[in-house]
Amino acid sequence: MTKGAMLYEGKAKQVFATDNPEQVVVRFKDDATAFNAQKRGNVDLKGEMNNAITTLIFEYLNERGIQTHFIKKLDEREQLVVKVDIIPLEMVVRNYSAGSMAQRLGVEEGIKSPVTIFDICYKKDELGDPLINDHHAVFLGAATYEELKDMYTLTARINEILIELFDKMNIILVDFKIELGKTADGTIILADEISPDTCRLWDKDTMKKLDKDRFRRDLGEVTEAYVEIYERLKKVLDK
Amino acid sequence: MTKGAMLYEGKAKQVFATDNPEQVVVRFKDDATAFNAQKRGNVDLKGEMNNAITTLIFEYLNERGIQTHFIKKLDEREQLVVKVDIIPLEMVVRNYSAGSMAQRLGVEEGIKSPVTIFDICYKKDELGDPLINDHHAVFLGAATYEELKDMYTLTARINEILIELFDKMNIILVDFKIELGKTADGTIILADEISPDTCRLWDKDTMKKLDKDRFRRDLGEVTEAYVEIYERLKKVLDK
Ligand SMILES: Nc1ncnc2c1ncn2[C@@H]1O[C@H](COP(=O)(O)OP(=O)(O)O)[C@@H](O)[C@H]1O
Ligand SMILES: Nc1ncnc2c1ncn2[C@@H]1O[C@H](COP(=O)(O)OP(=O)(O)O)[C@@H](O)[C@H]1O
Ligand SMILES: [Mg+2]
Ligand SMILES: [Mg+2]
Repeated sequence: MTKGAMLYEGKAKQVFATDNPEQVVVRFKDDATAFNAQKRGNVDLKGEMNNAITTLIFEYLNERGIQTHFIKKLDEREQLVVKVDIIPLEMVVRNYSAGSMAQRLGVEEGIKSPVTIFDICYKKDELGDPLINDHHAVFLGAATYEELKDMYTLTARINEILIELFDKMNIILVDFKIELGKTADGTIILADEISPDTCRLWDKDTMKKLDKDRFRRDLGEVTEAYVEIYERLKKVLDK
Repeated sequence: MTKGAMLYEGKAKQVFATDNPEQVVVRFKDDATAFNAQKRGNVDLKGEMNNAITTLIFEYLNERGIQTHFIKKLDEREQLVVKVDIIPLEMVVRNYSAGSMAQRLGVEEGIKSPVTIFDICYKKDELGDPLINDHHAVFLGAATYEELKDMYTLTARINEILIELFDKMNIILVDFKIELGKTADGTIILADEISPDTCRLWDKDTMKKLDKDRFRRDLGEVTEAYVEIYERLKKVLDK
């Protein structure tokens, strides 16, 4: 496998071509941004941790029947994945109120929801990734109603698996976002990453935040949180 | 019927008690607000026009099997209605892109949607009536999934009837919002108003806006637009 040209540079990762047109390399950076990139910074070790954490989680999901883009970890910062057409919708799942939802609805953070809350956001930086609904997604041509149904089902299943996994790590999975993409044959699979950048993770005993909110809200011990998640994950997975 | 104490003063209307605890009087004001009341003004004749227009439309919907709160017009500015518990969700229907949706999605106004777009907004002035989704509504306790299903069905039916009615008036029904409420026995019925304050109405030939956007966007001839809608409505309804 030869790494080729950089195809895309995002806020937290870079994507490189390979000699196989159906595969790309994802490189995890230490760059951190928040609030639609108004806040920018750098978190030591974040790239390595997110690469390692995403690797473990995607392997775990794969073993449980979830199709992901993950092929293999290449080195500390890089992984080889199936190239997909990213569906421009962030699939957000919320088990507890937090972040933008708590603000939008005018409620406290940390309220356990009696139902699983799914949000979809239109992935468009210029617009600030706005919350939309299924009708908007269809209007935009981002997905059909049928595809959305499948996407919610897949997202719900991932939530079930992850709630249980994080529970074993003594962590509450408050919320997370995933990105789905279409492979060459049109199958919708899990892409991008699952890491403390994309989840809210609270220690069950202390309620300490072990995720990107430490960066967003200047809570300190940011690197330590990412390392902590990785250590607990390795432990429960016996890796 | 005796008019009692004012129970509520809103941005465009006042609600008064009557000697019957199951009925209230709605009084239509000339006050106009926009952008969550940041812009305020006064539109001559608006109260009278909205009272008259809502009367004609609610009667028309009633004849077509839609249960509404409307009982009777009392005078130029007032109507007697069934008192309901307003469900704190604005049900928005969009047949064409416009307003906040066009802004949110970064699209032009006036694009005909291939599907009927339903939005729900949480009716809470302090929060700016934010767009939410069904899961948020259930989380908030505003409605159950089952009630939401019925509410969308009712809203879709109202849209069908109104598209046809406005079409006869040579007008495109771009979008509108309604409020639904629960009667004493729990039935969900149409409440509030349907008027140029709550609809976007474009003349089919000239695309001239005949609705509150004339006030919001300082387009002039605001009163004239409300009067024009009333006149066309009377004509097609033979009133
Ligand atoms: N398997 C994949 N194939 C193609 N693109 C992908 C794949 N997985 C993730 N991506 C995209 O690669 C980019 C990763 O970089 P990131 O820094 O997260 O970007 P962004 O700032 O857009 O979130 C994202 O745009 C993401 O949608
Ligand atoms: N049948 C009804 N019973 C009780 N309240 C109603 C009924 N119909 C409408 N309302 C409420 O009366 C108020 C009308 O005043 P309005 O100026 O439109 O208020 P707002 O500024 O809250 O939109 C609204 O709060 C509306 O929800
Ligand atoms: Mg990203
Ligand atoms: Mg109102």
